[in-house]
Amino acid sequence: MEHKILNNIKSPEDVKKLNKCEIDLLCNEIRGEIIDVVSKNGGHLASSLGAVELTVALHRVFSSPHDAIIFDVGHQSYAHKLLTGRLHRFATLRKEGGISGFMRPQESVHDPFVTGHSSNSISAAYGIYKAKVLSGEGGTAIAVIGDGAMTGGMAYEALNNAGAKKGNFIVVLNDNKMSISRNVGAMPRAFTKMRNRKGYHKMKFAVSTLLLKLPLIGKPIHNFVFSVKEAFKSLVYKNNIFTSLGFNYLGPVDGHDTEAMERLFTIAKSYNQPTLVHVVTTKGKGYSYAENQPKDYHGVSSFDIGKGKDVSKCKTYSDVAGEALCELAANNKKVCAITAAMTEGTGLSDFAEKYRSRFFDVGIAEQHAVTFAAGLVSGGMIPYFAVYSTFLQRGYDQVLHDAAIANVPIKLLVDRAGIVGDDGESHQGVFDVAYLSTIPNVNIYSPCYYRELKNLIADTADKKELSVIRYPRGVENNNFDGEIGGDYTVLDNSGEKAIVTYGRIFNFAVEAQKSLDNVDIIKLNKIYPIEEKVVEYLINYKEIYFFEEGILSGGIGEHIGSRLLQRGYSGKYNIYAIGNEFVGASTIPSALKKYKLDTESMIEIVGK
Amino acid sequence: MEHKILNNIKSPEDVKKLNKCEIDLLCNEIRGEIIDVVSKNGGHLASSLGAVELTVALHRVFSSPHDAIIFDVGHQSYAHKLLTGRLHRFATLRKEGGISGFMRPQESVHDPFVTGHSSNSISAAYGIYKAKVLSGEGGTAIAVIGDGAMTGGMAYEALNNAGAKKGNFIVVLNDNKMSISRNVGAMPRAFTKMRNRKGYHKMKFAVSTLLLKLPLIGKPIHNFVFSVKEAFKSLVYKNNIFTSLGFNYLGPVDGHDTEAMERLFTIAKSYNQPTLVHVVTTKGKGYSYAENQPKDYHGVSSFDIGKGKDVSKCKTYSDVAGEALCELAANNKKVCAITAAMTEGTGLSDFAEKYRSRFFDVGIAEQHAVTFAAGLVSGGMIPYFAVYSTFLQRGYDQVLHDAAIANVPIKLLVDRAGIVGDDGESHQGVFDVAYLSTIPNVNIYSPCYYRELKNLIADTADKKELSVIRYPRGVENNNFDGEIGGDYTVLDNSGEKAIVTYGRIFNFAVEAQKSLDNVDIIKLNKIYPIEEKVVEYLINYKEIYFFEEGILSGGIGEHIGSRLLQRGYSGKYNIYAIGNEFVGASTIPSALKKYKLDTESMIEIVGK
Repeated sequence: MEHKILNNIKSPEDVKKLNKCEIDLLCNEIRGEIIDVVSKNGGHLASSLGAVELTVALHRVFSSPHDAIIFDVGHQSYAHKLLTGRLHRFATLRKEGGISGFMRPQESVHDPFVTGHSSNSISAAYGIYKAKVLSGEGGTAIAVIGDGAMTGGMAYEALNNAGAKKGNFIVVLNDNKMSISRNVGAMPRAFTKMRNRKGYHKMKFAVSTLLLKLPLIGKPIHNFVFSVKEAFKSLVYKNNIFTSLGFNYLGPVDGHDTEAMERLFTIAKSYNQPTLVHVVTTKGKGYSYAENQPKDYHGVSSFDIGKGKDVSKCKTYSDVAGEALCELAANNKKVCAITAAMTEGTGLSDFAEKYRSRFFDVGIAEQHAVTFAAGLVSGGMIPYFAVYSTFLQRGYDQVLHDAAIANVPIKLLVDRAGIVGDDGESHQGVFDVAYLSTIPNVNIYSPCYYRELKNLIADTADKKELSVIRYPRGVENNNFDGEIGGDYTVLDNSGEKAIVTYGRIFNFAVEAQKSLDNVDIIKLNKIYPIEEKVVEYLINYKEIYFFEEGILSGGIGEHIGSRLLQRGYSGKYNIYAIGNEFVGASTIPSALKKYKLDTESMIEIVGK
Repeated sequence: MEHKILNNIKSPEDVKKLNKCEIDLLCNEIRGEIIDVVSKNGGHLASSLGAVELTVALHRVFSSPHDAIIFDVGHQSYAHKLLTGRLHRFATLRKEGGISGFMRPQESVHDPFVTGHSSNSISAAYGIYKAKVLSGEGGTAIAVIGDGAMTGGMAYEALNNAGAKKGNFIVVLNDNKMSISRNVGAMPRAFTKMRNRKGYHKMKFAVSTLLLKLPLIGKPIHNFVFSVKEAFKSLVYKNNIFTSLGFNYLGPVDGHDTEAMERLFTIAKSYNQPTLVHVVTTKGKGYSYAENQPKDYHGVSSFDIGKGKDVSKCKTYSDVAGEALCELAANNKKVCAITAAMTEGTGLSDFAEKYRSRFFDVGIAEQHAVTFAAGLVSGGMIPYFAVYSTFLQRGYDQVLHDAAIANVPIKLLVDRAGIVGDDGESHQGVFDVAYLSTIPNVNIYSPCYYRELKNLIADTADKKELSVIRYPRGVENNNFDGEIGGDYTVLDNSGEKAIVTYGRIFNFAVEAQKSLDNVDIIKLNKIYPIEEKVVEYLINYKEIYFFEEGILSGGIGEHIGSRLLQRGYSGKYNIYAIGNEFVGASTIPSALKKYKLDTESMIEIVGK
């Protein structure tokens, strides 16, 4: 696809020079480029397509990096990347060493903050804004946040902190009328109401733009009318949650009408008050498949542009977890399922349909989800909260304080545990074992195979323990049909060397063992706490090789190593895990190889 | 003090039987008992005194435990404890083995959920409420939450989830017009506005109570008018943040007028919609010292009832941290300080006064605080976020995702690190080392003495590293004037045995060493990451005793043990830390003794 306009955008300042016709062309070219690259590399399509005009309008009114623009989550920042000097590298999107699928400060001065986890943009932008004020550097900061991300408590903490202050701080609500799963919370309903009040706002725009067009006196009068006259304000637009929190509210405005958005952003820029601009966009805009099925085109693998996404797919760990929960729920009316806006991602679509009253999508609200689960248990139910490992980080305190202290037996299904691949640093599920094993009363299981996962879900239901079952992203790789059970499983029992491991990489150990002599495998099924008998068993080996798909520091390898030493073990002990660093984007096999967690590495290391 | 009425309250049902005169007497007796016991044991005085009538009114309208009542944070639940069968044990408040200063399910069926950390009550109560609905058990759940706690994002996540649904779920906003430190956020201003709108509500109460008094047809008409007629509703009361989130709003009502509250609670109970009742209370009510200086009487040590609190106090670690920050800020205009509603607790009062523009009280919002700090750094500032160890648990994901991934050098001053004493399980600062050391790019320092703390604060300012400086609650205990510096400090260098330790208990090791022969002390100054040279140095000892005032699992003792083993160490290695359990209320010395972290235990263990 030819990029007549886009090729000439060397920096966002070039966007300011375009006329209306060129802007439309530019938006088309950006869409074409995004669809082209995402169809090859996979990525977040629907949100990125929805934010094209919004991004162009932002760059026409504001001046990045003097004005810092932070896209919440950042999966809709592709247009921003294309307009800020990254067109030539855009084909490397989400590849090892390539352009990240989220904002990354090391990538560009136009990415002022790391993004990936939801709802942090207002906090970060407000910090940057206050630094600009304190340093006298000038400029503003803009947080662009979706309606989904707005259900995260952090966003509200930041609004509360920034609201009712002086200063030109700006939040753009990118209201695409849905988050990843449909939000069931009150907030989306409130937004709907606000969207339907255009009448109030039309009058305001008219007055506002009219005043701003008057030479000299226009702006002062405008500012007087809109910033000072409380009476006029309340006449023109009704109170809403943002005005309650001390924000000026502008909108709603059509998020695909660049001119209309530019007008509002210009007004917002002129206020000496925190201002929220409500922009209404269509997810997937401009690519019919994505527009019609935005949920299916949220995050996608590579696909054929002409035919759309291949809807057939292999069964994943998430699907198996969802199935197991459905089976459980059929026979036990106490079983509930909770998701934090990830119904599809965590395999809960069927459950949501079949057991509607026992299914809870709480919004992007992991903190609430954990404590809500603990409340359900206190009332006699058996709730399973299915959540990505990386997002459960938000619920650390709640697991500890609201569940573990009183030993409330909530059940956590920790999905995407381990290396996740091309989403990179912000999404790796490599910390859960380390952080959850700091908490007393927590029990962690790490199945390798679907059948184990299913059994564990069934077995934990009636256990009066806080159970965590963690499993990786994607599809099972199964070359083992032996028996697995109890706290640990031993394969062979003859060697002087032991491979100790857990989770999906057990399968690689099985493979490696075929090429090794005299090497046993000890597969940990329950990985925390480790029973004394496991340590006792291991002490007989002369050499122990611990392979762990997780962070080294605080991992099970360290727990066991320390226990072995205290019991007087004096053999060889080696841990292969993720050294204390963040894991960048790459394929899963490539990352596993890098950290020596693949079959070949195991053979090489243990066979020496 | 005689308890004519209180002595006869065996269960909350007895409260329902009292007449107006007896209710007033009861409230007086409760106040007397609270002041009496807190003056001896210490505790949370001002909030508890403010919630006396509120608690009585709740128990008169609702039926605990059929209706679950959760007091957010729980430090205002003393009256609740006195009304639910705990009068006879109330003198043991906050003592080892005694009544907790917060809600504890193991203590009473009337404490449905653990409390201690702020803003979790709506999530927990909503979980319990949904469980009641699903199980058909009936009853409702009531979250009683302060205006301070309402600034925590979790509360908002829960409101969003519960709002705009059917069902009789109730939140009581206990608006005492201040949280621990004065909230600077937009929310308290919004509450002020709401408090000043009594006119709107008076009319509503009148209509409502009138209708409810009509036999038979009253209630249906009432429900029709108040639940269905959108038009009428918006006439009677204006929109506010709670109505935006789909809550019915009732109030404001005088929180010391039991009759008025009972009327509103009765109305709230009749709705088939989530309802928020706005109650306005006075912190410290009924004890003049506390009423006049509610901040000083939030959490207190024992005091003389007639004279009030002794205002002279010893300098604490918090004070020293505050002083050091002030000194730093005087010479460096980039230095900022952040607190999450704990200005006094973290020793920042002077900073707040002297460097107003660089001081940020963000509300009870640890998540936002961490990310806001990272934003400030991205804009060129040097922010120190001073926060209690236990509350930083809320910011785990933000430290990891928003600061560590891009190696943003925020500075965390982790106060109340280690055992905290009588606040018990929910407040112990024993997890921070374990959870923070799971995060790449984090550097943790654990000073023992004031002079070290001061130096560390000064030294870390210009370091481009994410620094954590952790220090305990209370006052330095110093019997050592030797030099301390670098990554570790060795005391003597002659022994075959080594005590390895860090933080405040180093002082006990110094003491113990005097009674021991041939024992060296290795004090870790930087406790994470541990440099290879430290491990190399330790490897020469035949016996190593690691004393750690923190949780065992994921602690530094395990890190080092595992490293020693991997390097082939075959000497004796023993860790004394907090075994994987929660630490209950007791004095600090008693807890340290229990976990063998005191001088005598060290002598006994190492001297064997």
